[in-house]
Formats: sequence, structure tokens, C-alpha cells
Amino acid sequence: MKTHLECIPCFLRQVLEALDMSTNDEDIREKTLREVMSYFLREKWNKNTPELGTNVHRIVKRITGNSDPYEKLKEKYNRLALNLYPKLKQIVKSSECPLLTAAKIAISGNAIDFGPRTVIDIEKELQNVLQQGLAISDIDQLEDSSLRTKKILYLADNAGETFLDRILIEELVKREVKVTYVVKDAAILNDATFQDAEISGIAQVARVISTGTDCMGILFNECSDEFLKEFKMSELVISKGQGNYESLNDTLNKEIFFLLKIKCPLIAENIGYNVGSLVLKRCFNKCVPTGT
Amino acid sequence: MKTHLECIPCFLRQVLEALDMSTNDEDIREKTLREVMSYFLREKWNKNTPELGTNVHRIVKRITGNSDPYEKLKEKYNRLALNLYPKLKQIVKSSECPLLTAAKIAISGNAIDFGPRTVIDIEKELQNVLQQGLAISDIDQLEDSSLRTKKILYLADNAGETFLDRILIEELVKREVKVTYVVKDAAILNDATFQDAEISGIAQVARVISTGTDCMGILFNECSDEFLKEFKMSELVISKGQGNYESLNDTLNKEIFFLLKIKCPLIAENIGYNVGSLVLKRCFNKCVPTGT
Repeated sequence: MKTHLECIPCFLRQVLEALDMSTNDEDIREKTLREVMSYFLREKWNKNTPELGTNVHRIVKRITGNSDPYEKLKEKYNRLALNLYPKLKQIVKSSECPLLTAAKIAISGNAIDFGPRTVIDIEKELQNVLQQGLAISDIDQLEDSSLRTKKILYLADNAGETFLDRILIEELVKREVKVTYVVKDAAILNDATFQDAEISGIAQVARVISTGTDCMGILFNECSDEFLKEFKMSELVISKGQGNYESLNDTLNKEIFFLLKIKCPLIAENIGYNVGSLVLKRCFNKCVPTGT
Repeated sequence: MKTHLECIPCFLRQVLEALDMSTNDEDIREKTLREVMSYFLREKWNKNTPELGTNVHRIVKRITGNSDPYEKLKEKYNRLALNLYPKLKQIVKSSECPLLTAAKIAISGNAIDFGPRTVIDIEKELQNVLQQGLAISDIDQLEDSSLRTKKILYLADNAGETFLDRILIEELVKREVKVTYVVKDAAILNDATFQDAEISGIAQVARVISTGTDCMGILFNECSDEFLKEFKMSELVISKGQGNYESLNDTLNKEIFFLLKIKCPLIAENIGYNVGSLVLKRCFNKCVPTGT
């Protein structure tokens, strides 16, 4: 997705949020915000949002000298999700449609996103999701495709959410589907890294790799060869969260299931559902050859 | 009040709001936002918010070529308030404490502010205010002081709100208090101008002057000599809204009653009440001579 003008104040707000977690030094705070604004003035705004966002958060990390501003929040949400895990496993076990329930749980985990919001009540979010339906639910296609391909490339989003991803992955593994779970190579926002995958025990049920970079979403020109190869070879992708959606929604010739909570009005407009909606949406944009 | 870092993204959001009402031309929209950001980078941020805000909105007006982006919204709210006026007069008439009721109505009119928010349901706001109490209610002091001075300088805030100010002014006039009503000399945000004072019939109950400028709030270094003289001579000031509060909250040796709805977290912190609170607050900061 291309950056809209509305993204600019939202990015600056996100910078202040990251600064709140990084430093009390008013000079450094102001310097960082100025540096980000200066970056926006040098930059063209017709790029996609994860590209601008990545650079914005790199500026925050560089000027504050804090390579992981969201570290404490990630730890907190990992603890929360660890405690929820047994209860959620039980809910899936006693469910009539365990794959759908597990998918709903994985999507509800996407409420853990410190990008657009900071205050989250994960338990409440989970209860709501399990009660309410999904705005888009392509679960049957997900089941069919995963049984056919037997392999899924699963793009993670946030720390904490990884525990809830594990629940969906365990349901897929029961169906003899092999999962490759993709985290970020270094900290960006509250995105999951190898450490978060480790803490949530993902490595016991999936192969874990990284994008090879600290980008928001997926920026192909920065990703490692290993990831690019995996992505190219994969027939079926699960993509969690808005950052990955913004990166991949226009991807051609790849079957992608987007699992996310809509938190941004521009993404809401793009998908055609309101902010707050929970989505399990299949996209398979085919490249149509044109005549010459 | 000094500008905080949090004000910067809020100003940019306000720019987009003004742009939505000014132009659909994406190039002009982006140029305006860039120009505002460039201004912020050149500017020191230790100034007060109305000063920066004034310059921000002047940039919007200059680049869009629209000298009054909020014109249509002001017209709409003038119509709304005109229709409400007879009903509100009746409420005051049948009230046990007409001055307090009129003051509450004038404060509730402060919900009409397109700066921080665009979607307002003025009738709902009015009902809430009349039912709920004020977070701070220095109404007795206002009554005492106005009966003593018999003269009030009344600093207006928004268009539409002027009709509700009129209701309070009419109660003051009944007590033989003379009111000078101060509007802006030219359009800035949705602030009331001579035209709005005219439409709401204020001129029938008060003398109307302007600040002599199109500033947000009150910027003394830009105001006309006429206004400065009035302000200097006045013993008692009623100040409506956040913009005037941000300009005048530290004023020395002047009895000022601030009537406003708190809409901004930083002002909430400054006043000590939550966002959404309605306030009738007396300030009289005395200058204490220090020894040499």
C-alpha cells in the first residue's frame, strides 16, 4: 500500500510512543522528532508505508541509542500470552471447528500491536473475537489449500502474538502441514524476533527463519537471500498483521491468507471493512499477460 | 502554555482536516503538509501553541489559496445554533439558577470546535452539559465580580458558539453588566469573526470589537492597539475555549474566568481534570514583587 498524507502525523505519533519507551531526555526527544520530520521532507511519499516506517523507526533507534525501545512491552505481552496459552489450547480442543477457532485466536493475537495503539486488554479482545464472527472468513479455502500444499510460509507479526500463532500452527501440524515461521532479524516496533519465537516454543512445531532484516512488514529489497528463496518457492503464505498486509496486498501470483485486525482507517478503506474488523482474507492476484 | 512535542503531530492532523475542507488537489495537499513541516523545522518549539498554530493555519490558507477553509462548517454550525437558541432561552428562563444555566450553555457551546475534533453532536453535548455538573464551577465568584465591575471583556471562541455566548451575555446584561465581545479580525480555524457575531445578534446586547488579527487565541504582539487598550483597562475577562486558555492561563494581575471544554490531554494535565471536563475556572495570578 502506498503512503497517504494521513500516515505522516500517524508516524510522528508513533515516534512519540517509541520515545516514551526510550528516553526522558527532552533534547533527545525533540532531536528525534525533528530528524524524522527532516527525513520525511527529503523523502518521496509515493513509497509504501512499511518502507517509510522502517526508516522512521531506525532513526528513533539511532538517535536514542536504544536498539529495542519496545523491549519491556514485548516481555510483558510474552508473559501475558504465556499464561493464556493453556486456556486457549483447551478452548480449541473442545471446539467443534478447531481450525477456525485456532485461526480466530491467532487473529485476536493481532490485537497486540503497539504501533497504532498502546493500551490493550488482550483477554477482553480474545473473548470478543471468540464470540464475534470474522468480517471475512476464508477458512475453508485455507483448510483446502493447506491440505493440498502441505507446506505454509507463516509471516509473524508481533511478540506475544507468537504464542497464539503457535496454537494455529499446532492445528496445521495435526493436518500434516509443515510450517516455516518467519520473524524479524532484529527489533522493529514490537515485531517478533527469534527470541520471541524461542520463548513461545514455536521452534518445537515449525522451522523458524527470519526476513534477514529489521524491516516493518516485508521489504523485498532488504530481505536475505534465504528468505527470498523461501518466499519464491512457497505456494501458500499466511501473513499476519497490517505491516505485512501493506507490504504484500498487491503481490502477484501467490496465494496469501491475510490474518489481521484492521486498526487503520486507510487499510479499512482498502479492505472494505470497518476499523476493528477481524479478517481472514484470501488473496491470489493473478498476473494477466497483456498483448503487445 | 508552551508547545509540547505531542502538539506537532496534532497540528499536522489539524492541517489535514483543514485541507479536507479546502482542496482535493493531491499536489497542493502534499505541498501544504510539507510546507508546514518545513516551518516546524525552522521554528523553535518553546513558543506557545497559539503562536505556532496561527502560523500553521496561515500556511494552509496561503498555499491552498483558501482564506477561510472552515467557512461551510461555520455556516452549518451557525444554522444549528440559531435553531437551538429559542429552546435554550426557555431553559434559562425556567431555571432556578439562570446565570449558572446560561454559563453552562455557553460552555457547552465550546463543544463546537473543529480544531481537535470534527464530529460533534451539539444537541447531545448540550443535554449532557445541562445534566452533568461542571468539573470546576466558580460561578459565585463570576457573579460577584461582574456585579462589582459592571464591565466584562468577553473573548469569543468559535462560530455557532456565539449564539450560546449571547445567552450568557443576556443574563449579564440583566444584571446591568456591560459586555465587550471580542472576535477575530479574519478567519482562523472555525473562530468567530464579526460576521458570526452579526449573525448571532451579539451586537444587540454587547459592543463587538476584534483582536485586530487572525491569530489563534490571543497573541499580544499581533493584536491591534484598540484591543490591547481594552484588555489593559478591563478588570474582568471571560475567556472562552482552549486557544484563549493556552494564550492567557499565565497572565498576571488580571481576573479571568476561563469557560471551556477540555479537549486536549496536555490542557487536561495543566488544569488537573480529565479530557471531556467542562470548566468555569477563575484565575487571578498576582505578580509578587521580589526584593533586590
